[in-house]
Amino acid sequence: MRRAIALAARALGSTSPNPVVGCVLLDAQGRPAGEGWHHRAGTPHAEVNALRAAAEAGHDIRGGTAVVTLEPCNHTGRTGPCAQALIAAGVGRVVYAVADPTPDATGGAATLAAAGVDVEGGLLAAEAAAGNAAWLTSAALGRPFVLWKYAATLDGRSAAADGTSRWISSAESRADVHRLRAEADAVVVGSGTLRADDPHLAVRGPLLGEGTVTQPLRVVVDTHASVRPGARVLDDAAPTLIAVGEHADTAHLTGADVVRLPRNGTGLDITALLAELHGRGVRSVLLEGGPTLAGAFVAAGAVDRVVGYLAPALLGAGPTALGDAGVATLAKAPRLAVTDVTRLGPDLRITAVPTTATTAPEEN
Amino acid sequence: MRRAIALAARALGSTSPNPVVGCVLLDAQGRPAGEGWHHRAGTPHAEVNALRAAAEAGHDIRGGTAVVTLEPCNHTGRTGPCAQALIAAGVGRVVYAVADPTPDATGGAATLAAAGVDVEGGLLAAEAAAGNAAWLTSAALGRPFVLWKYAATLDGRSAAADGTSRWISSAESRADVHRLRAEADAVVVGSGTLRADDPHLAVRGPLLGEGTVTQPLRVVVDTHASVRPGARVLDDAAPTLIAVGEHADTAHLTGADVVRLPRNGTGLDITALLAELHGRGVRSVLLEGGPTLAGAFVAAGAVDRVVGYLAPALLGAGPTALGDAGVATLAKAPRLAVTDVTRLGPDLRITAVPTTATTAPEEN
Repeated sequence: MRRAIALAARALGSTSPNPVVGCVLLDAQGRPAGEGWHHRAGTPHAEVNALRAAAEAGHDIRGGTAVVTLEPCNHTGRTGPCAQALIAAGVGRVVYAVADPTPDATGGAATLAAAGVDVEGGLLAAEAAAGNAAWLTSAALGRPFVLWKYAATLDGRSAAADGTSRWISSAESRADVHRLRAEADAVVVGSGTLRADDPHLAVRGPLLGEGTVTQPLRVVVDTHASVRPGARVLDDAAPTLIAVGEHADTAHLTGADVVRLPRNGTGLDITALLAELHGRGVRSVLLEGGPTLAGAFVAAGAVDRVVGYLAPALLGAGPTALGDAGVATLAKAPRLAVTDVTRLGPDLRITAVPTTATTAPEEN
Repeated sequence: MRRAIALAARALGSTSPNPVVGCVLLDAQGRPAGEGWHHRAGTPHAEVNALRAAAEAGHDIRGGTAVVTLEPCNHTGRTGPCAQALIAAGVGRVVYAVADPTPDATGGAATLAAAGVDVEGGLLAAEAAAGNAAWLTSAALGRPFVLWKYAATLDGRSAAADGTSRWISSAESRADVHRLRAEADAVVVGSGTLRADDPHLAVRGPLLGEGTVTQPLRVVVDTHASVRPGARVLDDAAPTLIAVGEHADTAHLTGADVVRLPRNGTGLDITALLAELHGRGVRSVLLEGGPTLAGAFVAAGAVDRVVGYLAPALLGAGPTALGDAGVATLAKAPRLAVTDVTRLGPDLRITAVPTTATTAPEEN
């Protein structure tokens, strides 16, 4: 199963709106016979890929075992149901980690059992669930999983008093952010960050060389449609969506993908934004800031994981990483649990998940 | 030597202006014969305590070895020179960790060697130096070692928008702060913190039960002498010094220990404050804030170690841990190195030391 989880992880960031899934097939004597993983939506599922690999290698998997990270699906979508494919291949036993929570696809275990296949669920379930955290959270909440990422000094500043912010965090931290982008379906920034930094937001570097990386959708939350036509985020390195307020003047954005959303206070309605993204197949969002937008997401209860890159420097002035989140008193502050602390060069990467209000599963 | 270092650590916070020192004596056959440590200034040094312990136990240490964390002293202060005491006791070999950097006391190794004692320095020097970091830094810089401690949320806020700050950090973190206080010679706060929190600042809890804890001097940096007579910091649980500006009206502070210091901008001159404290025998300062005072210390280059208690909560508003430190642009930000990350209940304790400008030794 650990091998199947590792296979699944190869496609993280490329399978939405589907989950990542890995599958290892063993023959009747328990010898490895084939393996596969789901590459992207619309292409064969992990089980089918593994069955093909076994057939191509000439292995007989009749009476053998399929080890899968997620309960085999029971429905015919763009590809056929995996439960039927496994039954047809004569597999005698199926071991899966996590049950499928979606109404469409669930029931695979029952179908297999009814066909006489020995079925067992729950093996390494926590580990497999962590690998699919975004998709499972999205399935449970009916909106994309949101990871808020920030970089700040030890004293919580995301830029100096004069606005300089390159580079607060180390090269190792910035490379790690590219990994987060590659794993996300969409990267979201506010118009303030766009004006201050003119970020590109596409995945760069060695990750692209691995072949399976899909560029995330770049999303600009731009209530007043203030993005200028030459902004780097509008180039063709990756698709871009500009979310504006209902009455914004978008005459200068001809040709761009623009969506109008309801307002909430001075910004856009975060719930409406996430619903729009969910409708476009986005299951995981990397929220890159700035402080105003991050505050709006926190206020909406729409942050499922926080990843902070803390640089050991002191500023004492300048914008903070998180702006107004509607928290007036300490007792109302959202509390989290630290799930991981890792050193990245001189920096610390701190990962935390809310202990209240959302159902985000903990990381390993 | 590791045993000697552990003995030395027992008196951390009680020996100023002296260092902490531990000593283990072995007889000529290498068997443990006695051990001792320096308890407080004006009482016998570690070597003398160890010699007494050996004599009381009836052990003959002639031809034996003295293992000491610091080079034995060569001068007669309130107690006699340890080098002479070791020579008189007939010790054949002295192994020490760290050379004595002070002009008065140095030369013990040479004295011992001249008397025919086999002398070796440098054993576990880094470990022993870490145990004496405050005293060694103080000796090198001619001012007290300064540890700035703060508690903040993950997003760098030390209180909520309405001023509530109890309790941002966990009970485990607060107990750890009491340990820092017990190890410091002085605890320093600004008048803003005094007004907002009315802190007591004395060491409480189980640490006092250990017997060797000395209450630190409580220091209030109070430019305009705004402390009110009934403040908790003025009780008799520990001594208190009120540092005010040259022209402050202190009529209401009759009976309190008040010192007038030159101004620097809107506050007091930090260098003058530290010189005053050094003159009073203070070798280590725990700076507890608030943000304005912490900013002044950072601006003065007078922070030798930072200990941040980071609570996994989000506020998005409220005062930050560090106020204006005269840093306008990122390139001028003081950079540090993280030397330790420890979990204290739900919190993270992050320890960092400046990588430039001061000579604070790294922690283990």
